[in-house]
Amino acid sequence: MKANIKISAVQQACNLDKQSNLQVSIEHIHQAKAAGADLVVLPELHLGPYFCQTEDYQHFATAEPIPGPTTAVLSELAEQLGIVIVATLFEKRAPGLYHNTAVIFDRDGSIAGKYRKMHIPDDPGYYEKYYFTPGDLGFKPIATSLGKLGVLVCWDQWYPEAARLMALAGAEVLIYPTAIGWDAADTKEQQQRQLDAWVTIQRAHAVANGIPVIACNRIGFEASPLDDKTGISFWGNSFIAGPQGEILAQANAMDTKLLTVELDSARSEYVRQIWPYLRDRRIDEYGNLTRRFID
Amino acid sequence: MKANIKISAVQQACNLDKQSNLQVSIEHIHQAKAAGADLVVLPELHLGPYFCQTEDYQHFATAEPIPGPTTAVLSELAEQLGIVIVATLFEKRAPGLYHNTAVIFDRDGSIAGKYRKMHIPDDPGYYEKYYFTPGDLGFKPIATSLGKLGVLVCWDQWYPEAARLMALAGAEVLIYPTAIGWDAADTKEQQQRQLDAWVTIQRAHAVANGIPVIACNRIGFEASPLDDKTGISFWGNSFIAGPQGEILAQANAMDTKLLTVELDSARSEYVRQIWPYLRDRRIDEYGNLTRRFID
Repeated sequence: MKANIKISAVQQACNLDKQSNLQVSIEHIHQAKAAGADLVVLPELHLGPYFCQTEDYQHFATAEPIPGPTTAVLSELAEQLGIVIVATLFEKRAPGLYHNTAVIFDRDGSIAGKYRKMHIPDDPGYYEKYYFTPGDLGFKPIATSLGKLGVLVCWDQWYPEAARLMALAGAEVLIYPTAIGWDAADTKEQQQRQLDAWVTIQRAHAVANGIPVIACNRIGFEASPLDDKTGISFWGNSFIAGPQGEILAQANAMDTKLLTVELDSARSEYVRQIWPYLRDRRIDEYGNLTRRFID
Repeated sequence: MKANIKISAVQQACNLDKQSNLQVSIEHIHQAKAAGADLVVLPELHLGPYFCQTEDYQHFATAEPIPGPTTAVLSELAEQLGIVIVATLFEKRAPGLYHNTAVIFDRDGSIAGKYRKMHIPDDPGYYEKYYFTPGDLGFKPIATSLGKLGVLVCWDQWYPEAARLMALAGAEVLIYPTAIGWDAADTKEQQQRQLDAWVTIQRAHAVANGIPVIACNRIGFEASPLDDKTGISFWGNSFIAGPQGEILAQANAMDTKLLTVELDSARSEYVRQIWPYLRDRRIDEYGNLTRRFID
């Protein structure tokens, strides 16, 4: 990895107007560049509302090929600013075959690689199994001119296996574009527990692997298409943590925010020397991790 | 699991006098019983000082067979009080073959099972690879009359693989006897980061697996035998977390403390229904977890 890289996360709301969402992203990418960032991360599916609150085939019409119209815009921006961009698109791969896909643009505007979300949730209000075929590109870091980026998406963040596989394959940082929020039916106490769990498990991926973690979430209330009462209040709280899981920057639950932090790759290496977890993994006894359940 | 079980953790100091250490443990086990506990956890290697600060063959003389004199005392106590006890002993298995072993006593005084620490650290002041052969019993929960206990020991706590394998094998709670502390040479800021990382990663095991976690640490400063300046300040902070990683009880860094919490197994099951992580694991893509590094 480049010795010190400056990374930014864009926490933003995503409304029905695709062009205005993209414009907000682009403005913040410019701001990130002005702040000296080498890499900028956008939230999951930042072009529009989180459409997975219901199952509606008409949303398939909003999917795009990769490369496609949005990647053309972001490629040009990445080249113009000389900045690495991590975006997430609803990918149309073939008729009837769609993915939730992160696209990583290198500083020369090329697509350095893509990651298709591997773990797909299905919960009330998060009907992703209807829309997204589970990824088939594996847990492979994307090689860029800044280093190897372990890009994972949202639900992946709850799986230590995903983070570990990225680290074992050489990822120097973990990046989680995400779209997660609160249900108004839950109590404040439940909501706080959910947020704490979300922060905690991602910080733990930093700890377990000795690498920084960037979590980039959206904000704003998005009403369910089913009625005018329910919906999701996306909880923001985007954060950047260092290689011991220490919080370096964190946004609140409400505001559009550009987080920018300079990462020190020498510190990551130092942490991995003093806490050498990879040295002692009992790989002779991990075979059962590929089982559904041991019964 | 029994619907509601009350669990206790005994945070205590461990000095040179084995009998007085054991007496402190026994008194707290009685207190735990008086508080209604069904299960009580002692810190790692609670019979004496943390002898792994140096490599000295004379310490092998303090190891005991299992069953042996200490297990006889604890078996009798478990039966007398009708309580499950999780102890950790320096196990002599054969001449030149020793383990760091948790022993689980059921309420009838029988040894329900043992767990031999699988991940063995070796850091300055924690020379465990000299003393302890890595465990060969695998990551197997211990079946007791209260339910299946996922007992792991200290350094294991940094490995999400260990927690996951216990959960996949049916563990209903994760239990970490431990001995971890601060080096006075580290700054307060570094010490705080270390403690936060330790709490964070264990809470994350609760989150990832939807089961409670008990971490039981020792307290007190133990000088290094090498000089009168260095040593370890064991940081206490024993805690019990619920199935979303929420802290239910936590001790401070200084005091002898009995933590007692009633766990609700119905709540664990509910959490695992609303956050069904096991459903979506990509077991088809986890094969590389048995590799040392993917290079």
